[in-house]
Amino acid sequence: MRVNGRSYRTIFVADEAGMVAVIDQTLLPFRFELRELHSMRDAAVAIRDMIVRGAPLIGVTAAYGVALAMREDAGDESLEAAIGTLAAARPTAVNLRWALERMRGVLAGVQPGARRSRAYKEAAAIADEDVAACAAIGQHGLEILRDLATRRAGEPVRVLTHCNAGWLACVDWGTALAPVYAAHEVGLPVHVYVDETRPRSQGAFLTAFELGAHGIPHTVIADNSGGHLMQHGRVDVCIVGSDRTTATGDVANKIGTYLKALAARDNGVPFYAALPASTIDWTMHDGVRQIPIEERSPREVTHMRGLAADGELTEVQVVAPGSSVSNPGFDVTPARLVTGIITERGVAAASREGLLSLYPEQARAK
Amino acid sequence: MRVNGRSYRTIFVADEAGMVAVIDQTLLPFRFELRELHSMRDAAVAIRDMIVRGAPLIGVTAAYGVALAMREDAGDESLEAAIGTLAAARPTAVNLRWALERMRGVLAGVQPGARRSRAYKEAAAIADEDVAACAAIGQHGLEILRDLATRRAGEPVRVLTHCNAGWLACVDWGTALAPVYAAHEVGLPVHVYVDETRPRSQGAFLTAFELGAHGIPHTVIADNSGGHLMQHGRVDVCIVGSDRTTATGDVANKIGTYLKALAARDNGVPFYAALPASTIDWTMHDGVRQIPIEERSPREVTHMRGLAADGELTEVQVVAPGSSVSNPGFDVTPARLVTGIITERGVAAASREGLLSLYPEQARAK
Repeated sequence: MRVNGRSYRTIFVADEAGMVAVIDQTLLPFRFELRELHSMRDAAVAIRDMIVRGAPLIGVTAAYGVALAMREDAGDESLEAAIGTLAAARPTAVNLRWALERMRGVLAGVQPGARRSRAYKEAAAIADEDVAACAAIGQHGLEILRDLATRRAGEPVRVLTHCNAGWLACVDWGTALAPVYAAHEVGLPVHVYVDETRPRSQGAFLTAFELGAHGIPHTVIADNSGGHLMQHGRVDVCIVGSDRTTATGDVANKIGTYLKALAARDNGVPFYAALPASTIDWTMHDGVRQIPIEERSPREVTHMRGLAADGELTEVQVVAPGSSVSNPGFDVTPARLVTGIITERGVAAASREGLLSLYPEQARAK
Repeated sequence: MRVNGRSYRTIFVADEAGMVAVIDQTLLPFRFELRELHSMRDAAVAIRDMIVRGAPLIGVTAAYGVALAMREDAGDESLEAAIGTLAAARPTAVNLRWALERMRGVLAGVQPGARRSRAYKEAAAIADEDVAACAAIGQHGLEILRDLATRRAGEPVRVLTHCNAGWLACVDWGTALAPVYAAHEVGLPVHVYVDETRPRSQGAFLTAFELGAHGIPHTVIADNSGGHLMQHGRVDVCIVGSDRTTATGDVANKIGTYLKALAARDNGVPFYAALPASTIDWTMHDGVRQIPIEERSPREVTHMRGLAADGELTEVQVVAPGSSVSNPGFDVTPARLVTGIITERGVAAASREGLLSLYPEQARAK
């Protein structure tokens, strides 16, 4: 997607020697700076310090981290050390471990002398597969927006989204925002309502930044406002991402998603989750009961980072001193509130039957 | 209610000469300081600069502003000038105008020589009436909490509230929080989940401060978290305030209230609004259609004030530069989502019949 009129991916090989560049997402939305990853260690730091974030992007960064390690030393010990260091950078990231296992599987059977080029090739393949999946999600979601546009008589289709499930979380296109970018690409007018997404403000920081940089009209709102907008007919569709989806279509996503799904149902607004099949957990059938919800640091609620008048990124305390805090990171939207699930293979009903119609091989796998 | 072990009202006559003191609410929750109002002008500034806020407190401050004016000059011109200046301090505050009309009505028929003492007496009466109304709301709400306590086997009754409808918005006790204080007073254990209440953070700033100062156990949560907590059975009742309630029981309150009411209904959690009858608009019958919702300054969303590491209150930008913002101040919770309305006369169903059962004189008034 575009920033300052130029097309970027969130991660790319930046020179012939194999140096990797990423967007430093800790500085967004106030500064857009690329960060060079010269070594496996640089890649691990980028993952640990959340210079890169979003499951797909973390996975690709880890894969390139292995490639960077192979550039220095392509031996077996170096390979295992790199995998160990990178896996420890964000211990709970499932996609990170998946990408590292894939790199190990590919590289283990290759002679050290051939590993460097093979590693770059495999990392690029992981990146390209993610881009292809997101692009496909965008095309399937575009059909939904086209359909809604017929009722809007040339006025923009108004999409509400929560958190950041855009290209900054992926390599390109994004998941929930892929249909928005696809619509923009074909000249279908869209307007996005962006939930701030407290406590980490990924909406106000990242989604607003990436939409603005690409030229997509949008409006940032407090997380409290979406229900009111839907009550007054100002939202045509909600599209969110998902961190984990059950085989029955329950959607775990950033905390607060469930509240928007309730408002959507109460006002007859369609509510979609857009996600790659890799986030579907085919072993789970009751999201509210089965999906563990991470309790995150109270400091995310008690403190907020922003740009001070002196131009410095500054953290301020925004909760009464001494008050205790609870900070669940995610919530689960039951399938009954989800109009459909948009995946790289198409749009399915949020149900076991719906998802299996797109992924019949999962029925056979049981 | 108590701060640092001492009982306070939010406004009181502080010396024999009639100087008035208020809590400077712009410094909360980080500093607790009283502010002296020596003149009508001081009272107008306190209202204008939101040193005092909350409809009842604004009204009482205006009434004392008139008294302060009468202390300096009890003539007719001084009276009218004071009313004009104080009314202009917050032009949209209905309660402010109501209090000023009441002061005018009382003082107009009094000789200037007797106006000063009469003005202080009337301002005190307005304050005491607010305290009595809030105390009565507390006692009626306490019965609801007692009932819920029977299912909690000695564990605290868990109350979720939104925004600040506590004693800081009134003179004492508050509205939504009055039942909580009443429960604490009689030794019934309560625990309050406090919504942060973006964009102005009245929950994290004011509600958390006043509960903490009085010694009420509470937990601050992001506005996004309440649905998740209710899904997991961690909330026994929601109690919110109201800025305006229709004759049919639709409740306008701080933006985001509607989302919590939806979550309460979806999870079988009772949802109450606590309010003095003065906020019921008997001429309105469809809150979503009829109650005008103020669009507030974008800066409330784009910037956030907090305590920096250097101990200074600092404002930081927390939205991507260049993004547009929408900031509706209130939303309307339809009566169908409201379990009951707690007023100074009792608890009513959120319906025309319910409210008229408590206020039969309003039926005759039609």
